[in-house]
Amino acid sequence: MIVVLKNGVTEDKRDRLIDWLKGQGLTIHISEGQFQTVLGLVGDTTAVDMDLIASLAIVDSVKRVTEPFKCCNRKFHPEDTVVDVKGVKIGAGNFVMIAGPCSVESEEQIVGIAKAVKASGAHMLRGGAYKPRTSPYDFQGLAATGLELLKIARAETGLPIVTEIMGTGALDLFMDVDVIQVGARNMQNFDLLKQLGKLNKPILLKRGLAATLKELLMSAEYIMAGGNENVILCERGIRTFDDYTRNTLDLAAVPMLHELTHLPVIVDPSHSTGLARMVRPMSLASAVVADGLIIEVHNDPMNALCDGAQSIRPEEYDKLLKDVYKVREVAVG
Amino acid sequence: MIVVLKNGVTEDKRDRLIDWLKGQGLTIHISEGQFQTVLGLVGDTTAVDMDLIASLAIVDSVKRVTEPFKCCNRKFHPEDTVVDVKGVKIGAGNFVMIAGPCSVESEEQIVGIAKAVKASGAHMLRGGAYKPRTSPYDFQGLAATGLELLKIARAETGLPIVTEIMGTGALDLFMDVDVIQVGARNMQNFDLLKQLGKLNKPILLKRGLAATLKELLMSAEYIMAGGNENVILCERGIRTFDDYTRNTLDLAAVPMLHELTHLPVIVDPSHSTGLARMVRPMSLASAVVADGLIIEVHNDPMNALCDGAQSIRPEEYDKLLKDVYKVREVAVG
Amino acid sequence: MIVVLKNGVTEDKRDRLIDWLKGQGLTIHISEGQFQTVLGLVGDTTAVDMDLIASLAIVDSVKRVTEPFKCCNRKFHPEDTVVDVKGVKIGAGNFVMIAGPCSVESEEQIVGIAKAVKASGAHMLRGGAYKPRTSPYDFQGLAATGLELLKIARAETGLPIVTEIMGTGALDLFMDVDVIQVGARNMQNFDLLKQLGKLNKPILLKRGLAATLKELLMSAEYIMAGGNENVILCERGIRTFDDYTRNTLDLAAVPMLHELTHLPVIVDPSHSTGLARMVRPMSLASAVVADGLIIEVHNDPMNALCDGAQSIRPEEYDKLLKDVYKVREVAVG
Amino acid sequence: MIVVLKNGVTEDKRDRLIDWLKGQGLTIHISEGQFQTVLGLVGDTTAVDMDLIASLAIVDSVKRVTEPFKCCNRKFHPEDTVVDVKGVKIGAGNFVMIAGPCSVESEEQIVGIAKAVKASGAHMLRGGAYKPRTSPYDFQGLAATGLELLKIARAETGLPIVTEIMGTGALDLFMDVDVIQVGARNMQNFDLLKQLGKLNKPILLKRGLAATLKELLMSAEYIMAGGNENVILCERGIRTFDDYTRNTLDLAAVPMLHELTHLPVIVDPSHSTGLARMVRPMSLASAVVADGLIIEVHNDPMNALCDGAQSIRPEEYDKLLKDVYKVREVAVG
Repeated sequence: MIVVLKNGVTEDKRDRLIDWLKGQGLTIHISEGQFQTVLGLVGDTTAVDMDLIASLAIVDSVKRVTEPFKCCNRKFHPEDTVVDVKGVKIGAGNFVMIAGPCSVESEEQIVGIAKAVKASGAHMLRGGAYKPRTSPYDFQGLAATGLELLKIARAETGLPIVTEIMGTGALDLFMDVDVIQVGARNMQNFDLLKQLGKLNKPILLKRGLAATLKELLMSAEYIMAGGNENVILCERGIRTFDDYTRNTLDLAAVPMLHELTHLPVIVDPSHSTGLARMVRPMSLASAVVADGLIIEVHNDPMNALCDGAQSIRPEEYDKLLKDVYKVREVAVG
Repeated sequence: MIVVLKNGVTEDKRDRLIDWLKGQGLTIHISEGQFQTVLGLVGDTTAVDMDLIASLAIVDSVKRVTEPFKCCNRKFHPEDTVVDVKGVKIGAGNFVMIAGPCSVESEEQIVGIAKAVKASGAHMLRGGAYKPRTSPYDFQGLAATGLELLKIARAETGLPIVTEIMGTGALDLFMDVDVIQVGARNMQNFDLLKQLGKLNKPILLKRGLAATLKELLMSAEYIMAGGNENVILCERGIRTFDDYTRNTLDLAAVPMLHELTHLPVIVDPSHSTGLARMVRPMSLASAVVADGLIIEVHNDPMNALCDGAQSIRPEEYDKLLKDVYKVREVAVG
Repeated sequence: MIVVLKNGVTEDKRDRLIDWLKGQGLTIHISEGQFQTVLGLVGDTTAVDMDLIASLAIVDSVKRVTEPFKCCNRKFHPEDTVVDVKGVKIGAGNFVMIAGPCSVESEEQIVGIAKAVKASGAHMLRGGAYKPRTSPYDFQGLAATGLELLKIARAETGLPIVTEIMGTGALDLFMDVDVIQVGARNMQNFDLLKQLGKLNKPILLKRGLAATLKELLMSAEYIMAGGNENVILCERGIRTFDDYTRNTLDLAAVPMLHELTHLPVIVDPSHSTGLARMVRPMSLASAVVADGLIIEVHNDPMNALCDGAQSIRPEEYDKLLKDVYKVREVAVG
Repeated sequence: MIVVLKNGVTEDKRDRLIDWLKGQGLTIHISEGQFQTVLGLVGDTTAVDMDLIASLAIVDSVKRVTEPFKCCNRKFHPEDTVVDVKGVKIGAGNFVMIAGPCSVESEEQIVGIAKAVKASGAHMLRGGAYKPRTSPYDFQGLAATGLELLKIARAETGLPIVTEIMGTGALDLFMDVDVIQVGARNMQNFDLLKQLGKLNKPILLKRGLAATLKELLMSAEYIMAGGNENVILCERGIRTFDDYTRNTLDLAAVPMLHELTHLPVIVDPSHSTGLARMVRPMSLASAVVADGLIIEVHNDPMNALCDGAQSIRPEEYDKLLKDVYKVREVAVG
């Protein structure tokens, strides 16, 4: 950490700050510039309160030199992590296609869609049983029943299942889920992240609507610091000023995350645009950089109980999947 | 709800859409414009999926005419709500001053600060026992012990206590807290909001970092729809592009919220700026419009375990409180 | 335009508003809902002050039903516009590759790069003579000399030239430029847009850093309303909260713009990421949806006077261009 | 400037970078940390390309230690600047009230409003002759005629006049204006800023809709680097995600600007909220921190040709002005 002092600070005040910093177990390198004195703080600065130091009258600014994340930091773990979901591998060149409806609605629906996307080549089935809806008056999901229906679909197709958890209260019900998803609104639900860190189960962590990449990585760090290193990151669109699309897919975040972390990164083209007709182009574009795609597929989007606007039909998915692999071949080859 | 159809839509397609809408229990008014056909949907549209309709090939756009929030909507409840916390009233002209440290650190600390702010005229004591920190390596609060120390401070001063909850797991421990705070990162933790809706206890709901006012109100709606109408809203700064202050205090949000809802609205000048030296000016400015202020006060900010940068000292608070009331007098008078 | 009145508005006040609206040449359709009265305004509403009406005490909200842009609106001009730059066509399936250095630095530099990118297959040469720099102390471009050097490079290679204008003062010097670029910071320099609207010359209009798509289209409208219909839009990244990349490429904006307008849309992967190593992946991704790419290429990025960080070398461009066409084939095919 | 190298960089590569930096006239201090090598760059770093260095393969990150602005930097000019407009002083405790209509519409209108606001105690008259409108179809102002009418109002009342310039083309017409305003959309119209830097006339520089404080200061720097030190900064609201108010007044930006610069800072409560009923509360709040207020006043807001929604009436202004001074007394006292 670098602390830049203001011009004309008295020696006495400077020394008191240095003593206080040393009292926190740090070694201090002093460098006198033409206009300013710069203190280099060496040691474990992860617990140092940057904001407090920055607020002192004699301090001009404070800059962090090292990233505050460790477990997920590529610097300390250069090789790509491969997350293994019952034999389906993600990361380090292993590309994964996850598909399914926004919400589980009935056995017929979820099994039908599961069979269709499996026939197209999907590796995992997604489906919401607990739904985070902005309005308390919107459909909130089938809850425990939805989880049971997902397991039936898994039994029928062999596809591992991915579904969202909304709080620690229902954690027991998720023990037989293959990948537990943390939604964008819960990205900084630290209580939940800590509990998931105690599991030995892959976690799909979605980026918050206004989260920076550093914040996303710090949330992954919460899970990993607890001992669970099976984290898959997911770019699902961020909030910007334009209102023609629901969110803005931040595609460059994917290669940037690959530089910062060894964790696999997938893209959700359905939520990031909110429009079924945008799913194909954004999926093809994402195939250039991502380790996988999670796509909403519904056999009857007009009557879907939730997010029908962004679901594509199984036959569209079938064509899309083939083209995704063709783009990937160009990008990787 | 208003549905605008595209130019040149065939009568057949139009009629099929109208039938489908009627199937959802709505009455449809058709209005033929020079260029476009506009459908007016009358009835309970709260559960209608705007995005799905907007995504249809024949639809140009969809606009909601009525707000999706009801319980907290001033249209249906014109009088200001007054929340009563053990005799301390908030709203409808009742102004409240809440103060205390970011984190509870020790009995001596919390009791000392509580006595100081009470002597200055504060009405309630704040203090964090469970802390939402971006990094898992930062101080996470004293947890249950912190809650006990708050109760000791309450017993010593008579000040009701306000403290943050971070998940449903610890709900039992909060039954003896006077106001339960929901932090910005949990504003859309819907599981938690639903549980708080079942209590008969005031909830202080903070606005999320990138939340719109409508989203804040929908989160209040989650609590109120469960039966708990004792909700206090809190503007605590939003995220913008400038990095000189930690967040951006959106002061105009307060009078706008007063137009939209009957709930009381307070301001947190400490978190919204992140800088102790900004607390005084932003508190005076907020006094013009808010129903109260929640301010971080610490007797030793340099050694505070958390957020020392934004805490003011008891003697600064004392002077500030007096000036806040003077500004209020000008604004209201 | 739809005007929603508040509950309980007196007939007298309502009639006064209706009279005032009629006075602006509009026909008013009144529709009485269960809770609210909705006025439909028919006629030319482009000049109606939405904000004024919305601010009236009896008005709940105002919604525009028709887009405020006309000339660039696909509704009134369904076929794709093809912009022709000395025989190089852009739009309606014609894909264009524009390349060159951020700044023109010397004859040797610009001619060398021009020859290299032409050999790779580029269709046009870009290069800045006037540079919009945030700091007055940064290199501001070679100005008129830079324009002359561009023309030499054009003479040597036959590539049409694209270069940025920064104000109306230098307009005369741009009469022999093939495509005049308007930069992000000047997107709403309405004086400049009006002057460009009087020319018969293609304009490359870049999206502002925080501009919505509607604002970008309204700026195109300024040019087109003056009679110049040769407008090429350019997505070049918007500002968001993350600071690992300089800007955020909003790729979904491209297909959305294609729905809204008939104008061609290209992508600038260099400025949108600010990092040379991001240019390849973002170019391939953009190839899925865009009508062309404008890419910074420099033979000596380390010593480039401006924006070396985002320039790729000619040999990287050569490989990239081939792969861009392969991706396009998958996407279009 | 601080350059942090990546772990495990070879000595050879490190030395080549150091040589290149020295070649730019800088002295380099090398500091070897436990994990990382940090280079301190001493000398004139204003022209060093941070982004280029940051993009090098061996570089982890680059941080600026000194601000890139000089003329407007309080560090080099600790005393408050007082701008003098024909005897009206702004800054260093001199508070200024500027008022008038959004657009000049007629002699009767502008003279009438000028007399009214003067009677209330305003110090200067504002009024737009050239209007930056998002749509080319909206009223664009009376142009030269508007300037003449402003001068008539000045002659009748003695109030100095403030009006917006939209480009360098009309510069000659502004020679007899007392304060030239640069609007938010032109904050980075560098050509215009350079021309204004050559004048000896006060400039009112408004913050761009998504501009950081550093960018605002760099734009002030463009004017001051040309020799014109009479710059008044203006906070007029920034763009955020909420859509209930047109913009978001960033009030804390005012005291933060006061720390960073010696220039006076005023607030525009009319544009920052876009709603007449918000002008009073936001004016009172702004009085706590600002050096002045620029407020839209109109005698007939319903028929104003532009921005009627945010104008207050002369009688409201009269009461407001008195209360503004009362709040200021509390804040300063």
